[in-house]
Amino acid sequence: MKAARLYEYDPEMNVQLKIENVAAPTITGPNEVIVKVGAAGLCRTDLHIIEGVWREIMDTHGNLLPYIMGHENAGWVEDVGSAVTSVKPGDAVICHPHRSCGICLNCRYGHDMYCDHGLFPGLGLDGGFAEYFKTNESSVIKLNTGITPLSVAPMADAGITAYRAAKKAAKLLRPGAYVLLLGIGGLGHIALQVLKHMSGARVIAVDREPGAQVLARELGADFVLDGGPDLLTQVADITGGGAHVVIDFVGEHGTENLCWQMLRQGGDLIMVGYGGTIQVPTLDLVSREIRIGGSLVGDYTELVELMEMNADGKVMMHQTEYKLDDINTAISDFKNRKFTGRGVIVP
Amino acid sequence: MKAARLYEYDPEMNVQLKIENVAAPTITGPNEVIVKVGAAGLCRTDLHIIEGVWREIMDTHGNLLPYIMGHENAGWVEDVGSAVTSVKPGDAVICHPHRSCGICLNCRYGHDMYCDHGLFPGLGLDGGFAEYFKTNESSVIKLNTGITPLSVAPMADAGITAYRAAKKAAKLLRPGAYVLLLGIGGLGHIALQVLKHMSGARVIAVDREPGAQVLARELGADFVLDGGPDLLTQVADITGGGAHVVIDFVGEHGTENLCWQMLRQGGDLIMVGYGGTIQVPTLDLVSREIRIGGSLVGDYTELVELMEMNADGKVMMHQTEYKLDDINTAISDFKNRKFTGRGVIVP
Amino acid sequence: MKAARLYEYDPEMNVQLKIENVAAPTITGPNEVIVKVGAAGLCRTDLHIIEGVWREIMDTHGNLLPYIMGHENAGWVEDVGSAVTSVKPGDAVICHPHRSCGICLNCRYGHDMYCDHGLFPGLGLDGGFAEYFKTNESSVIKLNTGITPLSVAPMADAGITAYRAAKKAAKLLRPGAYVLLLGIGGLGHIALQVLKHMSGARVIAVDREPGAQVLARELGADFVLDGGPDLLTQVADITGGGAHVVIDFVGEHGTENLCWQMLRQGGDLIMVGYGGTIQVPTLDLVSREIRIGGSLVGDYTELVELMEMNADGKVMMHQTEYKLDDINTAISDFKNRKFTGRGVIVP
Amino acid sequence: MKAARLYEYDPEMNVQLKIENVAAPTITGPNEVIVKVGAAGLCRTDLHIIEGVWREIMDTHGNLLPYIMGHENAGWVEDVGSAVTSVKPGDAVICHPHRSCGICLNCRYGHDMYCDHGLFPGLGLDGGFAEYFKTNESSVIKLNTGITPLSVAPMADAGITAYRAAKKAAKLLRPGAYVLLLGIGGLGHIALQVLKHMSGARVIAVDREPGAQVLARELGADFVLDGGPDLLTQVADITGGGAHVVIDFVGEHGTENLCWQMLRQGGDLIMVGYGGTIQVPTLDLVSREIRIGGSLVGDYTELVELMEMNADGKVMMHQTEYKLDDINTAISDFKNRKFTGRGVIVP
Repeated sequence: MKAARLYEYDPEMNVQLKIENVAAPTITGPNEVIVKVGAAGLCRTDLHIIEGVWREIMDTHGNLLPYIMGHENAGWVEDVGSAVTSVKPGDAVICHPHRSCGICLNCRYGHDMYCDHGLFPGLGLDGGFAEYFKTNESSVIKLNTGITPLSVAPMADAGITAYRAAKKAAKLLRPGAYVLLLGIGGLGHIALQVLKHMSGARVIAVDREPGAQVLARELGADFVLDGGPDLLTQVADITGGGAHVVIDFVGEHGTENLCWQMLRQGGDLIMVGYGGTIQVPTLDLVSREIRIGGSLVGDYTELVELMEMNADGKVMMHQTEYKLDDINTAISDFKNRKFTGRGVIVP
Repeated sequence: MKAARLYEYDPEMNVQLKIENVAAPTITGPNEVIVKVGAAGLCRTDLHIIEGVWREIMDTHGNLLPYIMGHENAGWVEDVGSAVTSVKPGDAVICHPHRSCGICLNCRYGHDMYCDHGLFPGLGLDGGFAEYFKTNESSVIKLNTGITPLSVAPMADAGITAYRAAKKAAKLLRPGAYVLLLGIGGLGHIALQVLKHMSGARVIAVDREPGAQVLARELGADFVLDGGPDLLTQVADITGGGAHVVIDFVGEHGTENLCWQMLRQGGDLIMVGYGGTIQVPTLDLVSREIRIGGSLVGDYTELVELMEMNADGKVMMHQTEYKLDDINTAISDFKNRKFTGRGVIVP
Repeated sequence: MKAARLYEYDPEMNVQLKIENVAAPTITGPNEVIVKVGAAGLCRTDLHIIEGVWREIMDTHGNLLPYIMGHENAGWVEDVGSAVTSVKPGDAVICHPHRSCGICLNCRYGHDMYCDHGLFPGLGLDGGFAEYFKTNESSVIKLNTGITPLSVAPMADAGITAYRAAKKAAKLLRPGAYVLLLGIGGLGHIALQVLKHMSGARVIAVDREPGAQVLARELGADFVLDGGPDLLTQVADITGGGAHVVIDFVGEHGTENLCWQMLRQGGDLIMVGYGGTIQVPTLDLVSREIRIGGSLVGDYTELVELMEMNADGKVMMHQTEYKLDDINTAISDFKNRKFTGRGVIVP
Repeated sequence: MKAARLYEYDPEMNVQLKIENVAAPTITGPNEVIVKVGAAGLCRTDLHIIEGVWREIMDTHGNLLPYIMGHENAGWVEDVGSAVTSVKPGDAVICHPHRSCGICLNCRYGHDMYCDHGLFPGLGLDGGFAEYFKTNESSVIKLNTGITPLSVAPMADAGITAYRAAKKAAKLLRPGAYVLLLGIGGLGHIALQVLKHMSGARVIAVDREPGAQVLARELGADFVLDGGPDLLTQVADITGGGAHVVIDFVGEHGTENLCWQMLRQGGDLIMVGYGGTIQVPTLDLVSREIRIGGSLVGDYTELVELMEMNADGKVMMHQTEYKLDDINTAISDFKNRKFTGRGVIVP
């Protein structure tokens, strides 16, 4: 099959993925599922992988390369292992990025992202920038009638990461409260839609890109800011003392130390983006009683919930499609923010 | 001032309120507020008061009559006591129905509806079917700019009762879940709007009245049913096993024993309407692990939240206006469901 | 192997189980586990099964009998299927009563008691009143070092049913609040211990049996009542207006309609026992804003949590042991409340 | 009356409070309460005040000095304003440190520590290191029968600050989970007792002082560590991967950057102590999904709850008493950790 493979890490990101022919995966265990890829989303984490940021975590033996990235996959079931009963060949599915065991205590609590034995195709083993890829029964969700893999692939990771953060925020927000989203890209625009449907709060969208600002307005942001030097003052004015919740989808280049300053007393900062280092005096944490917490990819059930919102037309992925042969262009365009929303690779 | 007063209880409701001239209320304590009534909503509880249902609870000494009903009031501050600092004459306000003490433990927890020393103008003391009425500082909320008392008066009770129930429901619902609202009247149509903005769940609206069905569709109900004899089957089909939450705004005439049967395992029935008696085998409660709980008028902070949603255009009161002189017509039309949404009395 | 089997239902409970020799179960699927029974608790549900109460639910084809009851099982792993990795022969284990699938949406949320494909050995298929019984990997929990199957078997059902109810209660209770436990038997005495460790609330224990009252005092109940005719008055006096939470472990013979009357405004009744029918006016539900909810057997993770409390010495099972040959005596003694705590059958 | 007053800030803390005669406070408003001080706790915040840490926040006009510190006060009501109804002269009371307004939205939510118009006697206005001090009705709580002001004074701040943090922790903990308390001083020893009664979790107590270690063991800590250089390893070993919750009562001298490293995935760090600056890479926050949040003094209702636990004998204050004349010795002993638990000043 055709696949795009990474051959070396490069902090400067001057490296290109190689499009080549490799053997397609086959069933080797009773719970496995082979998926014919319909589409695979391109994620900022893919950029970080190329840069080598995840090297120590996912390539512990140093022999991973060359390998196929791509962890936001949707398609059609091609083959299943002997114990699989919930899907059959031909079913359209979206694949939660995590292959969880279902037996460990974290799985039993429903926190399958914390699975003691989880695998993450696209990080540490071959993923979906290819014609076929392998996952297991515990990761697949059948698509609702009328939903195509192409329209939802990035929901598998960008979608649920944003959904998980937005859901955490929604629980903390009351009608009339303010939630600020920093970064209205592939994740931020999903969080915005989720928050408009799951809380009565007012959404302040912040992005430097005019295209992202337009998208934020179309999706119902109550306020759209350009993230200029007077951001703190603007937010204080709009909110009368600070936002109740801030979600930082950037997490680097200084945003990570700006965001907690935009909170009101008792407020929560949810970090989704990463790269920078937070520095916060404990006196600020305590006297203003603010919280700063990371948010990871969502659990399986969160992808189910998001797909229900998508089926109901409440949350749609805004995306730009690239052929697998053009994946290096897609990566370059992503780095340079040449598209709004998400980039998607189609085999 | 002109006021409508009740002179006798009548289970048959053949009695009329008398429109007459009475002395306007005056400030007699430091925390009191006199409000010039802009509008006062007409509530099913007013019908129950006339019928004598609340007699034992609110007229314990048997000397309440004649008195002025009306507990859904909005208007303009006319006068304030010496200790009042948060509002001043001329301010447009909506009045939470409860005059709470602010000192007892229930108040300190924010549960001012459970106040140990609370008073409820319109139930047990004079209310707002008049030109002026008296409340205290702890009950008033300044209206947002551009909001008129007339447009929001029934939010004070119909609104927050529906909001409190809908908010409870929203906490129990995940995207893709089903919530059923039985009765799309003055309360139900508010709950519907709240749920569409605060949960990703699907709303099933049930009402026998064609006008209410039309309103439900306009407000975004995902399914609208007429409550006919095959209701249980219809709900089971739509939901694939029962609703996750049911809110019963009727609570009598048999709905109270239909509603818990429409729940799926683990589901919640929230009772808002009342009159009937629930009969449920404990085996059903336990084996299906369902819950049945009453819901009262909302707390002060819930009215604040609802007013924010109203200011944002998310929740609007659908109402029909009657002059104070025509209050008996309003009551008659309400009994006969001649209007959808809420009836409002304007002095 | 030796086993006790039920041959007919009898509402009068005059029937005896037959002790006989039957074939031991064998592994027939990859996820199965055979357990050599160390002990099996005797449950009120076993009485209800004999009476035929569960007949329609668990014996739908009418061909279940004769079969082996016993759903509170602990012992040692005897054999495992090919896919089982988390336990091995010789491991001491307690068995959650439910064999859940791990794939359906309820399982994924961690609500394995709601599993779409769950099996319940002891109800609907052979259980543990025998030398061996069969379950699957998803139900077993390895015992902590030093814990014997005999000391914990009834934790598998009596324990987690009580734990689940107590945990729900603990979430609703603040220090200084009152929780009333009606029935200090096999379940109630566990709930009492859990509540003493997981909430700062005061526990009122109610039981007619002097032995149960003594046990309640030993376990730290703050108040012990005998459930006489002035129970409502006693509770109102102690609590100053009603209990915040009541857990009814009886659920029949009239307790089911006494319990909700002992709640204060905003209180919760948790039903665990069953048999009777609740009758409650909707006006009481609404004006006092009380909730009535059933509580089922706990989830797998709840059994894990309970076993941790047991390993820490915080919650111990008070029990009386009977040999498998004497199971009919055990049943008779249980009906006549001849022992406090739980009865346990040892093969 | 006799009072101890601060005359200057000194980062080196070489300054002494002056014991002198000043005019006793008198009632000047309808909601005020004069309390004859029974005892006043000495708080680390008092040290920080002397050092000038709070200068910018509480002494904004630069004219506060000389003033009377002391914000952990209990005693007997001496006089009340005209509108006060819930207490009368002679009542034994403990005083929540915050004089809240009861009208602002934060107060209405029950978050009186966030009151828009709150005053904090002892910080910014005269406090309780004196024979009398002034507060208002919204801050006083009547003591349970048999409880003396002397036995509970530090509950007013040390107590509820620890209680609030411990209560937050308890909500996050399941039986068998691990919670680590760093610092078993005046706050930590209260948190330890609360957690032993309100969660089924295991408590790891960390303190360098042998006296504090002894106290921790007496109060039921499951593990006691001395905070030596191998702390991280010890905690990882005990917990099998990190604590579920860590509460840092120190917050300076490096603990603030040690604590988040002791968390397991999904864990929470609650900061109570302050002084240092946290530095945490966003990648750690996100990939391990940990949260870091400050915790402030508790709300009024939290002091009520804590006093109920104290009345039930569940949480006791370990303290050393000093006469008001010896307050400078008390301060010196506190700095040098010459006593365990809390120091208390008795007029």
